[in-house]
Amino acid sequence: MTENKNYQQLTRTFQRLSRFSHLGAIAGWDMFAMMPPGGSAARGAALAELGVLQHQILTDSSVAQALRNALQEDLNDVEQANLREMTRQYEQAALLPESLVEAKSLAGSRCEHAWRSQRPANDWEGFSENLRDVVKLSREEASIRAAAKGGSRYDALLDIFEPDMTSARLDVLFADLKSWLPALLTDVVEKQAQQPPVAPQGPFPVAEQRELGLEAMRILGFDFDSGRLDISAHPFCGGVPQDVRITTRYNEDDLLSALFGVIHETGHARYEQNLPRKWLDQPVALARSTAIHESQSLFFEMQLGRSDAFLKRLLPAGRQRFGDQPAFSSDNFIAWNQRVKPGFIRVDADEVSYPAHVILRYEIERALIDGDIEVDDIPALWDEKMQSWLGLSTTGNYRNGCMQDIHWTDGGFGYFPSYTLGAMYAAQLMAAAKRALPQLETSIANGDFSTLFAWLQQNIWQHGSRFTTSQLITNATGEDLNSDYFRQHLTSRYL
Amino acid sequence: MTENKNYQQLTRTFQRLSRFSHLGAIAGWDMFAMMPPGGSAARGAALAELGVLQHQILTDSSVAQALRNALQEDLNDVEQANLREMTRQYEQAALLPESLVEAKSLAGSRCEHAWRSQRPANDWEGFSENLRDVVKLSREEASIRAAAKGGSRYDALLDIFEPDMTSARLDVLFADLKSWLPALLTDVVEKQAQQPPVAPQGPFPVAEQRELGLEAMRILGFDFDSGRLDISAHPFCGGVPQDVRITTRYNEDDLLSALFGVIHETGHARYEQNLPRKWLDQPVALARSTAIHESQSLFFEMQLGRSDAFLKRLLPAGRQRFGDQPAFSSDNFIAWNQRVKPGFIRVDADEVSYPAHVILRYEIERALIDGDIEVDDIPALWDEKMQSWLGLSTTGNYRNGCMQDIHWTDGGFGYFPSYTLGAMYAAQLMAAAKRALPQLETSIANGDFSTLFAWLQQNIWQHGSRFTTSQLITNATGEDLNSDYFRQHLTSRYL
Repeated sequence: MTENKNYQQLTRTFQRLSRFSHLGAIAGWDMFAMMPPGGSAARGAALAELGVLQHQILTDSSVAQALRNALQEDLNDVEQANLREMTRQYEQAALLPESLVEAKSLAGSRCEHAWRSQRPANDWEGFSENLRDVVKLSREEASIRAAAKGGSRYDALLDIFEPDMTSARLDVLFADLKSWLPALLTDVVEKQAQQPPVAPQGPFPVAEQRELGLEAMRILGFDFDSGRLDISAHPFCGGVPQDVRITTRYNEDDLLSALFGVIHETGHARYEQNLPRKWLDQPVALARSTAIHESQSLFFEMQLGRSDAFLKRLLPAGRQRFGDQPAFSSDNFIAWNQRVKPGFIRVDADEVSYPAHVILRYEIERALIDGDIEVDDIPALWDEKMQSWLGLSTTGNYRNGCMQDIHWTDGGFGYFPSYTLGAMYAAQLMAAAKRALPQLETSIANGDFSTLFAWLQQNIWQHGSRFTTSQLITNATGEDLNSDYFRQHLTSRYL
Repeated sequence: MTENKNYQQLTRTFQRLSRFSHLGAIAGWDMFAMMPPGGSAARGAALAELGVLQHQILTDSSVAQALRNALQEDLNDVEQANLREMTRQYEQAALLPESLVEAKSLAGSRCEHAWRSQRPANDWEGFSENLRDVVKLSREEASIRAAAKGGSRYDALLDIFEPDMTSARLDVLFADLKSWLPALLTDVVEKQAQQPPVAPQGPFPVAEQRELGLEAMRILGFDFDSGRLDISAHPFCGGVPQDVRITTRYNEDDLLSALFGVIHETGHARYEQNLPRKWLDQPVALARSTAIHESQSLFFEMQLGRSDAFLKRLLPAGRQRFGDQPAFSSDNFIAWNQRVKPGFIRVDADEVSYPAHVILRYEIERALIDGDIEVDDIPALWDEKMQSWLGLSTTGNYRNGCMQDIHWTDGGFGYFPSYTLGAMYAAQLMAAAKRALPQLETSIANGDFSTLFAWLQQNIWQHGSRFTTSQLITNATGEDLNSDYFRQHLTSRYL
């Protein structure tokens, strides 16, 4: 009757998992965007129960059996890719003993919860105590994953977020950045000091900021039939491809923070909204990786959003809502959006100094997971690297130094490199699009971005996880990832 | 170790079910209040998958076994009540063959979907074709349930919504209403014709209506830490007790529709928000029944919301938002809110003519399920009963006659009586509260409703499903349900 019995059985299992994920995604979005505080404990319990169910379904012995048997079945290219992604999901879930998953979750929650008050209190002593537990358990996890996969402990964690990426390869990519970025940064800061731009004058009412954000989303092709814009304390992109929920936060004194948050999340959203509909509910239809996801948000935020062409396109809407003030002259508005100013905080950093924040953390977290340093060594290393990269001292300033982010609190080691990989991918993709489409630069300059979106759809979005990252990027740009295009982009925009 | 092994196992199973219900409730709320249209198909699939899971968990043979064994275990009063409610849930789910559940769901969806366009088109011919399928399957369901439980087919459906209620008892209650309500209605209409009130002049902007609704919710003690107010096409109360979501819809030409919708849903919400927290996640912590739920919403909407005291309390907020117009004189505003005008549409009916709509449907649906009439007989019967009750002809006017509501489209037979049972319970409860608390009428007249809410909390809310409906109402009011108090209420308010 059916030749792919095992494969068919697997697609049904993963369809169930996808539908349960849908409920988790909406309940998660609601938790951050809508839920009153009294719902918190019950929501946490409901989501945890769902997590247990999903883990049970995914790691059931029948799944392992079907994955093995399906390898012998007659599958086309997409089905083979789907089987590869199914196997990856299964192995990631099945490798860890449930006791470790639980211990890690508890230690992560404890560390994250305490961090919320320890960070404002600059309490490294208290924080490091919890962090030691998290690191210990993350090392255990990494050891188990490394034993199964080969390679170093850190590489095993990296692989969760970025399949096939290794620290050896990261070292090469980042060494290149380190060879030219500090000098570039110095030059840009010096150049910009000569003509400092004027800041737009607030206050900027939330309702008007929201309308400007929606206008930007429209310009950027967000499908409002399949998505929403809401408010949450920490901006994110959630939901499901048929119904993508993005959020931002508003500060009435700051026009650009919410706006560029929206533009960033719109990049994530358009990727999700354009994932292959015909494979939906299957792992092959998911976004390729965190770095490729980030390449889309940074493409929208940096390659396009902070470009002269986009800023000019958006400017009339800004003037209409916030008055025709001097800061909204075309030149000044562009300069204001492209200003470069090294600072302590990663999330506030411009795109030239941003890689410093990421490489610094990558080097520290890799040494930490591989066992070359201990938690107590972090502050000194942090300070040394911030001094060397950005000339900023963080001695005693844990709050704005190694305690500024949430990522390490719950053991999310291996995630940080995605940010800078994403920026490099974005630059390489933009360069390839311009090469492939001779009229593209003219259209972009005229404020018409449709050709650009069609190219992204053609080369990235519609493929989901069908190809490996390397194949995807080579098909799209003619070569595997390298940092040349990122350098060219920064040089041409900022010097 | 534990003497209640089976009972403990059951509480864990029902805790899981409750947590999955939580996710379903939030996804359901989102679907009506937030979801963009593109998410519709995926949401439907996700909720259906959840429904299958819940049905599997509930009807697993281990549950049946544990329910039997737990009967022999040493359980306190609350645990015994919980076991009773667990058994009820299990039996309701396990009785029906899955094929019938599926067929009924499909026929219901088809009928409901077609109804959306058939109602505006007044297309009885097309509608009745689908309805025949729904009735056929509902009769099958009713036969199976009746065979297991004893009693008539209709009684078996009634029992789903209102445990232990029978049509024999309904007939007695409704016969009493029929003996005095038509004459009362005639008298009220005649009396009110002498001094017709003035309508408040619109438009009434949505934002202002929303603020007035929130003010009413505050006056009525809604806990905003554990709930929200949103917009949906059809008002409802959803969510979970720790996070109750109510909705309304706004019409800028009509001030009272949204406002009294909010007040009605606030009654449902306060019941949910005050269900017994210490038994949460267990069936015994759920609301007692649909009629008791409706008694709370009608208590808030009719007993309290349309009372002179509440209307005077709300009036300053109304004047502040919509101007000090003649309609907002105290006497006129009360008269406007208490006007009685028989009409075709149940959901727009005042509380004096409302029972006519409900009893009419009860008599028709009971005859239909018991096989005394067929679908083709409905319009003539409807017309005859509307003529007799309200003096209105619906000949050929299916749209505003037997096709006006959604209830029958998906086989919700047995639900309608809850509306009028709720109105009777509400009147009986208010009378009992006034008897029990000699100072209550003075507090209410002074706009202080806290004593009243404390009484409801003490006598209804905190008990969840611990007692049967009959026990609950007898404990609260000293007697089982009867219609005397409803008659006294209508007579004293309207004559």
